[in-house]
Amino acid sequence: MTLDNILEEIKKANSIVILTHESPDGDAIGSSLGMHMALKSIGKNSDVILTEFPRTFNFLPGAKDVKQESDIKNYDLAITVDCADLKRVMANEYFENAKKTIVIDHHGSNTMYGDINFVNPVSPACCEILAGMFEYFDINIDTEIGTCILTGIITDTGGFKYSSVTPETFEFTADLLRKGINVSEIYERVLETKTKANFELLKRSMDRLELLENGKVAFTYITKKDEEEVNAEPGDHEGIVEEGRSIEGVEVSVFIRQRDDENVYKISMRSTGNINVSDICFLFGGGGHPKAAGALIQGTVEQVKEQVLKEIRKVL
Amino acid sequence: MTLDNILEEIKKANSIVILTHESPDGDAIGSSLGMHMALKSIGKNSDVILTEFPRTFNFLPGAKDVKQESDIKNYDLAITVDCADLKRVMANEYFENAKKTIVIDHHGSNTMYGDINFVNPVSPACCEILAGMFEYFDINIDTEIGTCILTGIITDTGGFKYSSVTPETFEFTADLLRKGINVSEIYERVLETKTKANFELLKRSMDRLELLENGKVAFTYITKKDEEEVNAEPGDHEGIVEEGRSIEGVEVSVFIRQRDDENVYKISMRSTGNINVSDICFLFGGGGHPKAAGALIQGTVEQVKEQVLKEIRKVL
Repeated sequence: MTLDNILEEIKKANSIVILTHESPDGDAIGSSLGMHMALKSIGKNSDVILTEFPRTFNFLPGAKDVKQESDIKNYDLAITVDCADLKRVMANEYFENAKKTIVIDHHGSNTMYGDINFVNPVSPACCEILAGMFEYFDINIDTEIGTCILTGIITDTGGFKYSSVTPETFEFTADLLRKGINVSEIYERVLETKTKANFELLKRSMDRLELLENGKVAFTYITKKDEEEVNAEPGDHEGIVEEGRSIEGVEVSVFIRQRDDENVYKISMRSTGNINVSDICFLFGGGGHPKAAGALIQGTVEQVKEQVLKEIRKVL
Repeated sequence: MTLDNILEEIKKANSIVILTHESPDGDAIGSSLGMHMALKSIGKNSDVILTEFPRTFNFLPGAKDVKQESDIKNYDLAITVDCADLKRVMANEYFENAKKTIVIDHHGSNTMYGDINFVNPVSPACCEILAGMFEYFDINIDTEIGTCILTGIITDTGGFKYSSVTPETFEFTADLLRKGINVSEIYERVLETKTKANFELLKRSMDRLELLENGKVAFTYITKKDEEEVNAEPGDHEGIVEEGRSIEGVEVSVFIRQRDDENVYKISMRSTGNINVSDICFLFGGGGHPKAAGALIQGTVEQVKEQVLKEIRKVL
């Protein structure tokens, strides 16, 4: 089966690179480092290449091994984790030049771009897929690997909150707690701790938050200027889209954030009910999960807002 | 043992009243209704008396049975759940007039004011104590009882976040999920859904938030006027103290809220590390848990702030 093939390729490869999606979140980084530490535990070296690394995750085992680039041009094996599409793979030249490629993911929109694809869209986090995979491989999930895995589970389930969580999610966490992993500390670090800049951006976005369509849609934004003024670092906008989502009656929360190219906004959408925001983001060339998705749109705040609202109205 | 005595008293009693603490939170209400539904499942009627009931919890099984008062003056048995002190019991005359009294609680500061006291300060929620108790009593935790219990666990662990959570917390939740209880929906309802008034109060409190003592203390407040202006209902200030707690570097978060008696403020404190806020609140006649506690203090915002800061400085 696929899992056996994956293990076989890992064993055969003399050089392995692990890649994930751009703007990496906790599941992307937890999966990358979890895979790296797991391979290390069975005596296989691997390079994790991340050109962007939010400092929230500096505490993770293996974080100091992360590289921005590599001398190796043609890896024997490239593994991408938590990434639906080759276009979104960070430093994807290493994937394209690799002799063999493996894709491990939990996005329903995965385009199956690897030689071997192991995709389970029902899994709440790519890290939860890895947990099952390591068990199948007889790799002991020690506290280091467990810390990485738990990071992905906590971030991608919003702290065990989303409807994607499974009994296995909770049982796995109970096991980690019994192994001595400080679940609460990891939770605080990856999900609860706001930098001052994060807090300031949250305040600004809350002050601007509009409730539209009879309170069914929450909309807010931050600009490049905001981020500059509060000395924001990568990741400091995290949590903003969740604020709108949490207001009673809101079915879709939309948060847009200006990119370096000032005419482009990254939209993040969350759904609290039946509206599939992945479908909406797909219309703009993006994607994600039914309840959490994103895309890039050109225009001013008002133009982007109107474009998105137009599509949301069709499905409200 | 104590548990056998509790079951014996329940079986003997022809009239049972269930009480909890004033300003009831999810654990207080979840425990009260969980106990009520559990007794019902073994054929015992009970009255749950709550003079205050945040509408967030209207969805809970048994909520429609809640009474504001009762014709019965002398119950055979009074049970308090999640309440450390007789002074804080809501409608405590029913407790004082009862022929027999049982106290079930998880506060370390419990004064053991019942005829039978079952107190486990290590338990993250009174509801988690009840879960174990019902199992011992051979009471099946059906979806109704489970929904009540889970509500207390989720609210008192901040959504599985606090260091008080145990492997059993996660295993119990996995079981509930397998029984078909919608964990995610309960989580959203009790912890994530903000009313518009709640959102407005949060915004105001965030705008006023001060970082003091080199960023180790977060302080903010809301007044009675704020609550009137946003048409706040009971419970609409929930979550404010958590905002300060979540800022990087903050060790103690203090939130004060003006009471109906305008010269009195309710202080809520949260600790992120080793500072025991229960000890600090105890100095003002309050109490709680080491990482989450409260008290009432007289004065203006500035006076209350100074009194609390003076005590915090001693332990920073």
